[in-house]
Amino acid sequence: MPLTLGLVGGGVVGGGVVDMLRNNPNIKFSKICVRDTSKKRDYDVPEGCTIIGDVNEILNDPAIDVVVEVMGGTGLAKEVTLKALHSGKSVVSANKALISKHMNEIEEAAAPTNPNGGQFLYEASTCGGIPIINVFLRALAGDKIKNFAGIMNGTTNFILSKMEMEGAGYADTLKEAQDLGYAEADPAADVEGWDARSKLVILVRIAFGVVLDEEKVPCVGISKVTAEDFAYAKMAGKTIRIIGSASETPDGKVSAWVSPVLVPSTSALSAIHGPTNCVQVCSERLGISSYSGAGAGRYPTANSIVSDILDLAGGKPKSHPYGGKVQGAELTDDYESEFYLRFVVCDQVGILNVLTGRMAEAGISVFSILQVPIKDKERVPFAVFTEKCKLSQTHQLLKLIQGIGFLLEEPVILPVSAQ
Amino acid sequence: MPLTLGLVGGGVVGGGVVDMLRNNPNIKFSKICVRDTSKKRDYDVPEGCTIIGDVNEILNDPAIDVVVEVMGGTGLAKEVTLKALHSGKSVVSANKALISKHMNEIEEAAAPTNPNGGQFLYEASTCGGIPIINVFLRALAGDKIKNFAGIMNGTTNFILSKMEMEGAGYADTLKEAQDLGYAEADPAADVEGWDARSKLVILVRIAFGVVLDEEKVPCVGISKVTAEDFAYAKMAGKTIRIIGSASETPDGKVSAWVSPVLVPSTSALSAIHGPTNCVQVCSERLGISSYSGAGAGRYPTANSIVSDILDLAGGKPKSHPYGGKVQGAELTDDYESEFYLRFVVCDQVGILNVLTGRMAEAGISVFSILQVPIKDKERVPFAVFTEKCKLSQTHQLLKLIQGIGFLLEEPVILPVSAQ
Repeated sequence: MPLTLGLVGGGVVGGGVVDMLRNNPNIKFSKICVRDTSKKRDYDVPEGCTIIGDVNEILNDPAIDVVVEVMGGTGLAKEVTLKALHSGKSVVSANKALISKHMNEIEEAAAPTNPNGGQFLYEASTCGGIPIINVFLRALAGDKIKNFAGIMNGTTNFILSKMEMEGAGYADTLKEAQDLGYAEADPAADVEGWDARSKLVILVRIAFGVVLDEEKVPCVGISKVTAEDFAYAKMAGKTIRIIGSASETPDGKVSAWVSPVLVPSTSALSAIHGPTNCVQVCSERLGISSYSGAGAGRYPTANSIVSDILDLAGGKPKSHPYGGKVQGAELTDDYESEFYLRFVVCDQVGILNVLTGRMAEAGISVFSILQVPIKDKERVPFAVFTEKCKLSQTHQLLKLIQGIGFLLEEPVILPVSAQ
Repeated sequence: MPLTLGLVGGGVVGGGVVDMLRNNPNIKFSKICVRDTSKKRDYDVPEGCTIIGDVNEILNDPAIDVVVEVMGGTGLAKEVTLKALHSGKSVVSANKALISKHMNEIEEAAAPTNPNGGQFLYEASTCGGIPIINVFLRALAGDKIKNFAGIMNGTTNFILSKMEMEGAGYADTLKEAQDLGYAEADPAADVEGWDARSKLVILVRIAFGVVLDEEKVPCVGISKVTAEDFAYAKMAGKTIRIIGSASETPDGKVSAWVSPVLVPSTSALSAIHGPTNCVQVCSERLGISSYSGAGAGRYPTANSIVSDILDLAGGKPKSHPYGGKVQGAELTDDYESEFYLRFVVCDQVGILNVLTGRMAEAGISVFSILQVPIKDKERVPFAVFTEKCKLSQTHQLLKLIQGIGFLLEEPVILPVSAQ
């Protein structure tokens, strides 16, 4: 008996799944639910498979074993996912926003202790084609993850690595990414770091057994990163990548954040260009391991969905969707790092004296100051690298310098990584 | 009911497995078979577990579900593996030499079509802690691998990356690796490339469905690589790594080989230092993905064994040990590449004229010639980079120049990679 699928969503990724499995004798496509049933598809609908407009035709069909949710969003998708799981259907999902937001309800419905619930598989939700969920759940099942960090969003890595290569500005590069189809018309979810944050929250749940409220995870996007920041980074032997980072702190909390980071030009992360993702994991037994590949796109994402579907077709036994680890650890929204502070000032006497005075007040030591020769005295960007301090100290500094007349913009504050 | 284990081999890796699973309530260690039962172990034997000297006590014990084979070798290990599988016990193995040599017999015993056979899992056999077997079998189950290549032996990568960093010679660096425990007293299996070749053969079976006779896979070790080769590589913007490479050729054959390769200094493989492994895979749907981590060592290897054991404890359904793909493809022992040829000659008039004449006879075009100013006229090493040609043409060249008086050593021939 083939495994019978109902797809909710028949767009780019759904079409990829159909293409990859259409000749597999163990898989049967039964129904594909789409918003507009009259729209022409860019793939052939398999024989015997019907295009429908009402998702209940899938949810109420007892012949359908697996619901493949590739519609996105957190409204109807939530209802579909939970209803399917509660009725004993398995769900294969690519929906990171839904999972990171409603982790607990999904866990409850798909827990192996719930005898009537279906299984929940979601490899495609996190880092596209990289099998990072399977690495966390299976390859490191007997190990203890200490920390992990990585490039978890392809769109922003495309933009940042292009800015690095071409010395281009943010706005122009975003426009180019949109023209090429790498960025959405409304790019906020990517460029503000929210997409990466959702993936970080999902991986933290597996790695540390902690459900984070994603709204509380410190998140800095790339929209304020300028060509000048890349120039200053280069002077310090570094470049800029947006990183999602999570670790257990010595006092048993979980530190998690998303931010552009100054990474050394010799690091593995600096070598990741274009819409590629890369996650580096440090675990107690295996040590450092690293996984990279396409972060998005029709077939990379479809490939992850297909590996989940084939797991179910192979008779995968029910297991905890997030590995079952549960800890009471709290999120800490503070962390220690060296920081890069970039100020933009209107040139006048005594600026450095004032700023370094406020930094001293906040307990922040200066490691180095970089300033290229001034071209325009009305707008002077310069960079300060700090010694190790806490993020909260840099926020304190922001308060201490608020309203100072020569500051033309809110300073950009980015962590600096040694690796 | 916990899963009951019998370990065959109680050394470094076996001890790591015990350490990682001793507190797992789903796992019970029943017996550990060792060569010398009186020898003191560097780990605590779990309560209720006995140290034995006769492996039949494990093979004939109906209470033992899983045999963990960490003894190595291809003699007794083969007998133990096949007997256990035939009697319905599952086998978790770290033994690459055994698998690559006796793939067919293991496959027969562990095939899902054999109702009485046990399961065969072997993540630890290939690239230590990297879950590359699982990536091939599961993450790429619906994809088609086009080619893969990587650093598959930690000892030789330790030696080569140290030679690169320190400008040191091969013999001294090997000695240092031996002193540090990274290389065996008899280093042949590592430095001649045989260990990497076994892993390559295992991965080829999964990727392309082809069982290769490993003796026929072209294999060049690192023992002839000199500090001069690194110097010439550096002049060309490259460094040297020993790579296992496999691909499907346009005419439907499988090309597979192990050799030191000149890789660009900016490549991901050149960034792999020390006893680390890294495999890069190019597949039709996912595109290029890359996996790196510790290639050997007690806990990295144990971690892979543990992930296999936990799969069995979780009720993993029986599946084909190598993914079930079978193709009639043949091995081709020839491949096309640019090559680096390093000659050592006794200086005299007309050497280049003679050598380039013979190269023309073999149909090989010269891309560039590098020669550092001569220090010792009695022993002059110099390098020729060729245009693209076939490995077989370089072998033809070797024949054409055999016996020429000014040649002091057999030339070193290494492929040059653009990536």
